[in-house]
Amino acid sequence: MKNSFGNAINITLFGESHGTGVGVLIDGIAPGIKIDEDFIANQLTLRRPSGKISTARREPDEYVIQSGVFGGYTTGAPLCIFIPNTDTRSRDYSPDLPRPSHADFTAREKYHGFEDYRGGGHFSGRLTAALVAAGAIVIPALREKGIYIGTCINQIGQIGLSEVPTSKEELLAVAESEYGLVGDYAISMMKDTIELAAKEGDSIGGVLETAIIGLPAGIGEPWFDGVESQIARAVFGIPAVKSVAFGAKDIELMRGSRANDAFTVKDGKIITATNNSGGIQGGITNGMPIVFRTAIKPTPSISQTQMTVNVATGEETSLEIKGRHDPCIVQRARIVLDSVAALVVADMLTVRYGSDALMQK
Amino acid sequence: MKNSFGNAINITLFGESHGTGVGVLIDGIAPGIKIDEDFIANQLTLRRPSGKISTARREPDEYVIQSGVFGGYTTGAPLCIFIPNTDTRSRDYSPDLPRPSHADFTAREKYHGFEDYRGGGHFSGRLTAALVAAGAIVIPALREKGIYIGTCINQIGQIGLSEVPTSKEELLAVAESEYGLVGDYAISMMKDTIELAAKEGDSIGGVLETAIIGLPAGIGEPWFDGVESQIARAVFGIPAVKSVAFGAKDIELMRGSRANDAFTVKDGKIITATNNSGGIQGGITNGMPIVFRTAIKPTPSISQTQMTVNVATGEETSLEIKGRHDPCIVQRARIVLDSVAALVVADMLTVRYGSDALMQK
Amino acid sequence: MKNSFGNAINITLFGESHGTGVGVLIDGIAPGIKIDEDFIANQLTLRRPSGKISTARREPDEYVIQSGVFGGYTTGAPLCIFIPNTDTRSRDYSPDLPRPSHADFTAREKYHGFEDYRGGGHFSGRLTAALVAAGAIVIPALREKGIYIGTCINQIGQIGLSEVPTSKEELLAVAESEYGLVGDYAISMMKDTIELAAKEGDSIGGVLETAIIGLPAGIGEPWFDGVESQIARAVFGIPAVKSVAFGAKDIELMRGSRANDAFTVKDGKIITATNNSGGIQGGITNGMPIVFRTAIKPTPSISQTQMTVNVATGEETSLEIKGRHDPCIVQRARIVLDSVAALVVADMLTVRYGSDALMQK
Amino acid sequence: MKNSFGNAINITLFGESHGTGVGVLIDGIAPGIKIDEDFIANQLTLRRPSGKISTARREPDEYVIQSGVFGGYTTGAPLCIFIPNTDTRSRDYSPDLPRPSHADFTAREKYHGFEDYRGGGHFSGRLTAALVAAGAIVIPALREKGIYIGTCINQIGQIGLSEVPTSKEELLAVAESEYGLVGDYAISMMKDTIELAAKEGDSIGGVLETAIIGLPAGIGEPWFDGVESQIARAVFGIPAVKSVAFGAKDIELMRGSRANDAFTVKDGKIITATNNSGGIQGGITNGMPIVFRTAIKPTPSISQTQMTVNVATGEETSLEIKGRHDPCIVQRARIVLDSVAALVVADMLTVRYGSDALMQK
Repeated sequence: MKNSFGNAINITLFGESHGTGVGVLIDGIAPGIKIDEDFIANQLTLRRPSGKISTARREPDEYVIQSGVFGGYTTGAPLCIFIPNTDTRSRDYSPDLPRPSHADFTAREKYHGFEDYRGGGHFSGRLTAALVAAGAIVIPALREKGIYIGTCINQIGQIGLSEVPTSKEELLAVAESEYGLVGDYAISMMKDTIELAAKEGDSIGGVLETAIIGLPAGIGEPWFDGVESQIARAVFGIPAVKSVAFGAKDIELMRGSRANDAFTVKDGKIITATNNSGGIQGGITNGMPIVFRTAIKPTPSISQTQMTVNVATGEETSLEIKGRHDPCIVQRARIVLDSVAALVVADMLTVRYGSDALMQK
Repeated sequence: MKNSFGNAINITLFGESHGTGVGVLIDGIAPGIKIDEDFIANQLTLRRPSGKISTARREPDEYVIQSGVFGGYTTGAPLCIFIPNTDTRSRDYSPDLPRPSHADFTAREKYHGFEDYRGGGHFSGRLTAALVAAGAIVIPALREKGIYIGTCINQIGQIGLSEVPTSKEELLAVAESEYGLVGDYAISMMKDTIELAAKEGDSIGGVLETAIIGLPAGIGEPWFDGVESQIARAVFGIPAVKSVAFGAKDIELMRGSRANDAFTVKDGKIITATNNSGGIQGGITNGMPIVFRTAIKPTPSISQTQMTVNVATGEETSLEIKGRHDPCIVQRARIVLDSVAALVVADMLTVRYGSDALMQK
Repeated sequence: MKNSFGNAINITLFGESHGTGVGVLIDGIAPGIKIDEDFIANQLTLRRPSGKISTARREPDEYVIQSGVFGGYTTGAPLCIFIPNTDTRSRDYSPDLPRPSHADFTAREKYHGFEDYRGGGHFSGRLTAALVAAGAIVIPALREKGIYIGTCINQIGQIGLSEVPTSKEELLAVAESEYGLVGDYAISMMKDTIELAAKEGDSIGGVLETAIIGLPAGIGEPWFDGVESQIARAVFGIPAVKSVAFGAKDIELMRGSRANDAFTVKDGKIITATNNSGGIQGGITNGMPIVFRTAIKPTPSISQTQMTVNVATGEETSLEIKGRHDPCIVQRARIVLDSVAALVVADMLTVRYGSDALMQK
Repeated sequence: MKNSFGNAINITLFGESHGTGVGVLIDGIAPGIKIDEDFIANQLTLRRPSGKISTARREPDEYVIQSGVFGGYTTGAPLCIFIPNTDTRSRDYSPDLPRPSHADFTAREKYHGFEDYRGGGHFSGRLTAALVAAGAIVIPALREKGIYIGTCINQIGQIGLSEVPTSKEELLAVAESEYGLVGDYAISMMKDTIELAAKEGDSIGGVLETAIIGLPAGIGEPWFDGVESQIARAVFGIPAVKSVAFGAKDIELMRGSRANDAFTVKDGKIITATNNSGGIQGGITNGMPIVFRTAIKPTPSISQTQMTVNVATGEETSLEIKGRHDPCIVQRARIVLDSVAALVVADMLTVRYGSDALMQK
């Protein structure tokens, strides 16, 4: 299942950067989830480029729900969301000059030149708008069940910023914040760092830290559908992600005596005294917060001249990427991570509790 | 598909640490792959504990091919391998005292006390013997197609050791080496580090670095079945894995101008001048070596007394793990990574080139 | 995978009868398949109701390709087709009075009242328009590889009509005919039979016979993904289908000595002298034509008064279905069967020969 | 997923007729299902050949549970059952002379001569022993939830025998009967009919009728995972099955006014007055008994001389099948159908109610 993930709820992405639009098909969603149109719009806004630290391409991301919703609730039938493209400038792209560290060359090798090469086509980060819309269907239903998800910008380049909190209130504040940062100082640090790179015609990456709280113990499957496997599979689908790490930072450098999470009792409930494992043992949740870190490579589109090869002539040549592009996408990827995490969690709950697991009322 | 991975070739693990045995079912394998019994036995030996740096549990890993092989070749029908357990000492385990950072507690939460709790049951690292046997079916077929895979121990705890090479000869030497280390000094460093931890009743983790060479460009799928997604999903299935990272170490700290892999021409073929992307763009191979790093947490079984909770009485108590256990499993996980990587590659080639993709003349 | 079928090419249906529209998402399609817009339009026309023997609901079925096509060819990325609804009269439907032998009641039981009940909602035969559009993407590519598919109306009620031919020319003629009937007499018999039922406020069913020629031997999988299993699974997805039978009619009544297909040699090729098996043994094609018969129940919408239960009050009551409906859908289902068969064949070829199997030069 | 079926519970068959043995892997089974060893043995006995009307090959079908059971209950981990072969006479088979209407030729075309050709290899009906064992794991758990399944021999050749009942007591009696027949007269008719065919060196087929009672309304999925689609897909996996039909016999010949199942109220529950639909509308259960008919072709192994082609030389030749074979397998297939139906039902319940759906206290 190429462009899909999920065992009980299948999420499939479609669309192209400069085609008709981008979309997502959600199959297996519970009936009776209330659609919160404002929330969807707001999530799309959080993903949208803004200010000097993002691409100049600005689209309102007007979405259309093409199926699966009736009377303001999900029906249980496949839910298709389509986001038409409006602001596309295709003249910026050439099929013969693959941009370094973009998917232009690999797409051509896979699709033999039939790929829509404009702006990365099907590989464009623009498709994450559809992912965000899909996430926005399930996030409110998860919150109603006490499950909260949030992602902080932990690092931009080498600059350390916020750590993700694990209380409901703080996590909710992070999820709804503009940048996934705690404190004004962090925001100005982030902006300065990105703008510096931009000014030099360059780009910059970073690290995001995500927490999921409120998941009961016993969720996930052994071996290849463990929580780590499922989250990692979906998260590596997001463009520019190069690593995913669960639990305490650098747990691989610790001794076992420090890394192990001893059990203890709190308010009559068995919990662990520490959470170095990030809430997962053997692929199964233990009831503690799930915590993972996602590394985002620097945006491959930079203004500086780069070397490439003209695939039509086979000759080496230089390339100056015009187009509009982001000097950093870490701050935008944040809301995509929340969405993907929410979709994976919704799927796992549906496997565990059945097809009505997310129904409200 | 809980205990499975693969789209065209499905790998499913079964078995328990202290039950009848462990096994693997391979469905969708090409016909006409020559079975190399010596190679399978040798791979199992490389995974097996040895010396002071491993558990005292020693089993010959005699495997039985229960189906799918005829006249020394795969038939194309499902291939089932079973490895009976022989050296099991179940008295070492109690169902009521979950060991910290093992899957005992989460298994109980998921399976309501019906799980086979002995030695981790279905969650035991012992099942990786079956994974290694499965890998040993396809590795020779991949080599015949010019695809080589090898994994180095890159770090034990904080001690830096070998980097994975990307030439065929060196990679083959690594794959067949006892420890996945380059040079005697590295071996003695590794042993000293592990033995020190063991002496202190403690355990230690580390990092493995894997390379896959010889894969053509154009392999993998966009979005959620990209090469990173597929490898990460399978690798996170391996017990104790806590992070997976592709490409240059710390690429997220670089600027784009340094991270980008410019295209160039060598011997008439388009390659990249650097390989910071680890051979993958947009989830699709670009023909360069695939490189990824896997972090292994310290083994949770340590001799030191730990705190736990008696799940029957709900009371906090202390626990001394007797059993036999490894102070470090990084060196054993190495061959498991090779196996998993080989199975993922075999699957992707079958998706790309069809069900006979691995058939040998 | 609820609304999907296919292993290498995944077909997912979405939409509702009286919502925004209906659509299909095709994931895993080869790149380089030429899109024949006229052919798609023509196939949609063949499915569309016409004359006195069909519902009065008439829509032009203007489709939009939302993704996956560029420069007139498939790109290999997911291909989404959307067909907006235009002629919808929702006042004809009530949520409280389930129509006998429709899916109203079962949808309500499954979706707890959240389902879009208008005109059958997601269960409506209208979604087969999207299936036909999907089929029309692959049928020309299959023909270019020498694979032809056609379906005849074999019976309307108890009236025997045409048998499906297995020569290329005749099969092509059937596929492109208005009714899937051979000869004017059969057409007038069919019309008379349907109109008679319609005049009496009743409906009628029938049997369709489908042939697939040109498939090489060795296609399909053993056991549960055999050709019969895959075709039957997809065909039973079509509303009103109640049985699927492969090979000679009533083969279960024959003795083995008559049913068995002896091997013989023709033009240097091993074929079978008879084709009672319908081209399949052990789930795998033998190179002979694949032949199957699909029984369609009488349309459940009839004008006569029927008994039902008001699900809101729990009281028995009578129901007169107003709406617009077909006295018979056999003649319309014909083109849906061709489409489904084509999609299953395309999928099996892709599994067998890899992801470029259907690419055209 | 070649040799598998099931969305939440995956059933995969493996093994060969004359290899080490046959087996089944059940992944996704609930924990806490009590294993009834006597019941498993008894079900295997019901499938086993007996008397003059079956093959002379007789094996005790000693099965081994290789994983997934602990303390007499399923653990929730993959459950592997292996049935070693004991009574194999491979000298009876030749790779060069494909038997008419067996899978010998198609297996060769698919697997290029690498297939295990002895006795049909992986395509042998012997693998259904493993299916029966798998079914015997879930049937007791289903019964505890009020779900009963039974299959009657409806026809042998053209001789009409029993119709499947739909009361719990009668269905249970049928399920546990030796032949799935009601009344001694039917048994003697069946035996006479089969023995007559056998005496003439011939074979005979027939029709089985299966009922499933006790399933709640609302089970199944729309479109391609409807109850009909799922049952048909699994049932067509059984060797010799050529058609599957749901609901009233010949519903396609009826008028809608007669075929439609009007709603009515009984004991405060909405039911249908008739059950021509066989308990399913739109792929979803309506709470009435599920009824379907499965046609089994005559056994292809007959004693009479048949024509075949020597695939090594390409020459036409005659063939006399020695081996041991059944003149009729309808009576043995009965218990296989019960097993497959039970596994499909177990899977659908797990999708609907979650992974603990079948857990027993």
